[in-house]
Amino acid sequence: MTTILQSHIAGQWVGREAAQVLRSAINGKPVASTHADKLDFAAAVDHARRVGVPNLLKLDFQQRAERLKALAKVLTERKEELYAISAHTGATRTDSWIDIEGGSGTLFAYAGVGTNELPSGNLVHEGPAMALGKKGTFAGTHILVPRGGVAVHINAFNFPVWGMLEKFAPTFLAGMPCIVKPATATSYLTEACVRLMLQSGLLPEGSLQLVIGSTGDLLDHLEGADVVTFTGSADTAAKLRVHPNLVRHSIPFNAEADSLNMAVLAPDVTPDDEEFDLFAKEVVREMTVKAGQKCTAIRRAIVPRQHLDAVAQRIKARLAKVVAGDPSLEDVRMGALASLDQKRDVAERVKALLAKAELVHGEKDGFAPRGEGVGEGAFFAPTLLLAKDPLRDDAVHDIEAFGPVSTLMPYEDLDEALVLAAKGKGSLVGTLVTKDPQVAARFIPAAAATHGRLLVLDREAAAESTGHGSPLPMLKHGGPGRAGGGEELGGVRAVKHYLQRAAVQGSPTMLSAVTGEHVRGAKVRDSDVHPFRKYFEDLQVGDSLLTHRRTVGEADIVNFGGISGDYFYMHFDEVAAKDSPFGKRIAHGYFVLSAAAGLFVSPAPGPVLANYGLDTLRFVKPVGIGDTIRARLTAKRKIDRRKKDAKGVGQGVVAWDVEVTNQDGELVASYDILTLVAKRGG
Amino acid sequence: MTTILQSHIAGQWVGREAAQVLRSAINGKPVASTHADKLDFAAAVDHARRVGVPNLLKLDFQQRAERLKALAKVLTERKEELYAISAHTGATRTDSWIDIEGGSGTLFAYAGVGTNELPSGNLVHEGPAMALGKKGTFAGTHILVPRGGVAVHINAFNFPVWGMLEKFAPTFLAGMPCIVKPATATSYLTEACVRLMLQSGLLPEGSLQLVIGSTGDLLDHLEGADVVTFTGSADTAAKLRVHPNLVRHSIPFNAEADSLNMAVLAPDVTPDDEEFDLFAKEVVREMTVKAGQKCTAIRRAIVPRQHLDAVAQRIKARLAKVVAGDPSLEDVRMGALASLDQKRDVAERVKALLAKAELVHGEKDGFAPRGEGVGEGAFFAPTLLLAKDPLRDDAVHDIEAFGPVSTLMPYEDLDEALVLAAKGKGSLVGTLVTKDPQVAARFIPAAAATHGRLLVLDREAAAESTGHGSPLPMLKHGGPGRAGGGEELGGVRAVKHYLQRAAVQGSPTMLSAVTGEHVRGAKVRDSDVHPFRKYFEDLQVGDSLLTHRRTVGEADIVNFGGISGDYFYMHFDEVAAKDSPFGKRIAHGYFVLSAAAGLFVSPAPGPVLANYGLDTLRFVKPVGIGDTIRARLTAKRKIDRRKKDAKGVGQGVVAWDVEVTNQDGELVASYDILTLVAKRGG
Repeated sequence: MTTILQSHIAGQWVGREAAQVLRSAINGKPVASTHADKLDFAAAVDHARRVGVPNLLKLDFQQRAERLKALAKVLTERKEELYAISAHTGATRTDSWIDIEGGSGTLFAYAGVGTNELPSGNLVHEGPAMALGKKGTFAGTHILVPRGGVAVHINAFNFPVWGMLEKFAPTFLAGMPCIVKPATATSYLTEACVRLMLQSGLLPEGSLQLVIGSTGDLLDHLEGADVVTFTGSADTAAKLRVHPNLVRHSIPFNAEADSLNMAVLAPDVTPDDEEFDLFAKEVVREMTVKAGQKCTAIRRAIVPRQHLDAVAQRIKARLAKVVAGDPSLEDVRMGALASLDQKRDVAERVKALLAKAELVHGEKDGFAPRGEGVGEGAFFAPTLLLAKDPLRDDAVHDIEAFGPVSTLMPYEDLDEALVLAAKGKGSLVGTLVTKDPQVAARFIPAAAATHGRLLVLDREAAAESTGHGSPLPMLKHGGPGRAGGGEELGGVRAVKHYLQRAAVQGSPTMLSAVTGEHVRGAKVRDSDVHPFRKYFEDLQVGDSLLTHRRTVGEADIVNFGGISGDYFYMHFDEVAAKDSPFGKRIAHGYFVLSAAAGLFVSPAPGPVLANYGLDTLRFVKPVGIGDTIRARLTAKRKIDRRKKDAKGVGQGVVAWDVEVTNQDGELVASYDILTLVAKRGG
Repeated sequence: MTTILQSHIAGQWVGREAAQVLRSAINGKPVASTHADKLDFAAAVDHARRVGVPNLLKLDFQQRAERLKALAKVLTERKEELYAISAHTGATRTDSWIDIEGGSGTLFAYAGVGTNELPSGNLVHEGPAMALGKKGTFAGTHILVPRGGVAVHINAFNFPVWGMLEKFAPTFLAGMPCIVKPATATSYLTEACVRLMLQSGLLPEGSLQLVIGSTGDLLDHLEGADVVTFTGSADTAAKLRVHPNLVRHSIPFNAEADSLNMAVLAPDVTPDDEEFDLFAKEVVREMTVKAGQKCTAIRRAIVPRQHLDAVAQRIKARLAKVVAGDPSLEDVRMGALASLDQKRDVAERVKALLAKAELVHGEKDGFAPRGEGVGEGAFFAPTLLLAKDPLRDDAVHDIEAFGPVSTLMPYEDLDEALVLAAKGKGSLVGTLVTKDPQVAARFIPAAAATHGRLLVLDREAAAESTGHGSPLPMLKHGGPGRAGGGEELGGVRAVKHYLQRAAVQGSPTMLSAVTGEHVRGAKVRDSDVHPFRKYFEDLQVGDSLLTHRRTVGEADIVNFGGISGDYFYMHFDEVAAKDSPFGKRIAHGYFVLSAAAGLFVSPAPGPVLANYGLDTLRFVKPVGIGDTIRARLTAKRKIDRRKKDAKGVGQGVVAWDVEVTNQDGELVASYDILTLVAKRGG
């Protein structure tokens, strides 16, 4: 008897009766079966809202980032359990690495996004705040807050782990519970991964639910605060997009669908160039990794007509060396498609493509998968086609054979290559192989209108290139048009997809209270204790110091020039300075900055450990000889990163707003300084 | 005979045969008629793509910003022509001001966004670029480029000018042609405005087309590069959203639909507070301005139960003073609904509301519009309702009477107020009237999940408040759920809606070529001429200077302390510094910054006019006594703002990348400096 997969709904594992048997892609043997038990989707959504949301929001961005990191470690430690199961999907070790360690790598990356780019608390201030009047009593800004709803993630079969985690990571970080629905064919691997995640004890109850099998009436239970994302076919995307309940509540729907990605060999590359081989290698890699079952694989290899034969030969030579078969065997570099259904589907599409294209390399070229029982497996030969008239034949730009299949197509000049590239009608990714930055400067911005991601490959980049087919956590994944029009990943951008943005208007004092950050013009607290002498826990946003004054003399300019070596005419040349816009010698901007630090410094050792940076410095007005300056220093933002230094002293980040003014109260310099502040609590 | 309105399609004014007669909202007299002539929408779309797009992209962001400013001036100069026509829509002078000058104000604001926040050229580098490997040969970043398609804007009847311009401004700035379809009822005013815009000669051919009447098969001609936006009813939004052609091509669809906006009087406000009156005043203003025909008007006034009667009385007293009638008469403060159809519709919805609510103030309370023929006009009495059980009666949160209608509802505590606020199921805007920042800090983030914009009103903000109902160009407009889930305005955010984002990967040199900005690690040009001695036109991104070196001695620290007054222990206290993370005295960060300026300064007068700021400074590694530093200065970004100084010298903005390194080549400080650089050409 095979294992019955279970759904995880409302805190319970559900599924006792077997339904559909799922078979190994390698040899057709049963791996597991789905369950026949009906799921209560109303309860699932309710659980996410009533249990998941409050539990997630008991933690803040920083804490959820910590959890993601810990979770990534757990999955890394237990990865071999997942590798063992992944083999049934037809994946080689490398294929599984992309899925499994690509997944945990995405968790690590989003842990970093949370730690480094998100605040403490559960509100993102997307500033800067701006004055909306002249007197400074009314200002506006933007905040991002948790939506309070649930995210439903519907995934494709090809990346059972990464596909789930790349959506889960930003959603979890945003404080939103997920209901994950993997594609049935490979759902046994997703289920195993979800079990590890739940066993870790790191996920607050209600933050992750799993649906094995159909989603039933799940979407009918959603509301405006929810989000649906989908990866899969354009047909299914189109059906989901018009789901009446999603439309009724304007529920955001993010799709990542079909894509006939291109790679272009630029006209500047000759067969003798290293880049010529890089092109062939990249095409072959994209055809064979995951047996070509990647939304991002190269489906269209666009090459200068004069190099068509040479490219075809290089690719053929590489393909001839690819050993397919049971990935557990040594030497095997290419596995099987995920199921026999997929094999049938790919075969049909290749047939359709062959109505418009010639076969350059295929099964006839000695394809013989190795291993026991592989005759029952879903193996498919790497298949290279040639489209002779790609400007006129749309089929080669429209039919996606989701396997180890790619079509070569010739072009005359770069403009024509751009036309062919755009015939994909919106793709996830495209590659340009070139040696010439000017070719890249011309091609990439034009191709960017129809591609979600673009790789410029040359010998320099090749040394560290992550490849055409790999979406990266910090870069946008998703393309316009046919590719679904969605946007995933891209670092903090993805977190924002799961938050709700609102504009906020009011007095600076009110905006400070709402955002948790000092907004200039808000009431401040001038305390007896110098704010630099307060520990992180004691310091409050709005704690402020108005310094004593300092008159700037000519000696300051002279001495500062002597120390810095900066003898710019504006400071030292009375003749030229008279002719300048300021009409006189002025103090160095960096002197003003340094003197301000001298005004607000608290010299003895204290909680402020270091001033590690400075942002958005603007010299608003010149400081002339005889001007008298002072500074106001106000605690602007506190981020509790829960880090400790080498000695075990806990520390947080504090940003300070600095306003340097002159004797008339006019602003002369404005900036934020960034400090590390020790915690009292250690 | 009334004027026949014309469409502007493919460069031609079209429309000779009259169709539907449009009547004055004041007295029912004919104003104009739509045309019966069929429009060729295939030609319109084709014209936008083939003529509009290339014409717009001959200009860059900076130039289009200039055009917007000039256009705003033209509309301001000729505003009285629009005011005269606007009166037919039932608008008072104030109502028309919101529409007409609100519209040109939005053009001015987006001109500023273009000038200040967008680069030269037609590509936005959404950096920073980030390393994707350890050796620095492979990096990634994001760019935004024109989509190359057309934007179809479908607008509501209530703001015939602003409604068009708030969508047109960011679209034009992004370099995308518009096809504008105003609501028929008030399309005569939009048509007049479009005529002024086209007559100005400021709009490149093909950048603006106008559809009077039905959109026919327009949407069937769109593709993935296009965009559709809509303002109007949720029903129509739902129909458009599932349009098969939009779905097939994943065409972005942005909707701004129904909204039952709330205003909450916080529990801390007593009838004696100024804020109590502010609340009543705001509700009355929102009921009467534009005769309540604003998507943003307050439909639900949520007040503490104990103050329900007092609030009702204050509002009644103010409503009693409102004089309705022909806006051309003095004293008239409230005009008519836009049409008799609207009047019927509002009356029906008030009837439906009265099934669940009581009438507090309405027609019976002495409503008597003044003026000749107003009996034939579309006047409707300000109508205040009272919902006694708003927690249970959903109708009062669901039925939007799009006129001078608002419903009072009581709450017990702030949590209940939040529940009531959220019952709008997604709104464009909400107001909280409070004196207490802590109340705002609790209420606003919670309400933000269901509101696009939130106003905190107190006596301080009131001095300059632009009001609950006014979307502002720099703040997001649009709300989740029922409000359509869209996002408009919000400064540069709206421009990005009309651009396409792509991730780009490659060597730093390739990324520099693509983005037009120096990316660290890219090849630089060390020229014989100091880059500070090059005029704006001659300077190229990548022009670089590696300075001579300087050894930092103890005397530098001592002297710098003397000049700045900064005697922080880390620089001066050998005992404490030994205990610090660095284990020794180190140089002031600001000394490193100042010394670097001394290394790369070019003292004589030259094209670099001023260093006006500095961004993202990070002190990466401490500089100790005996360390030897040098700086690399590289032209990073050029923005040609086409501004001239007082003497007529043209100048551009140049940002420079600065890397300060030590004797081991390690980075010690990293930042951008911002300069104004003179043009050779003047």
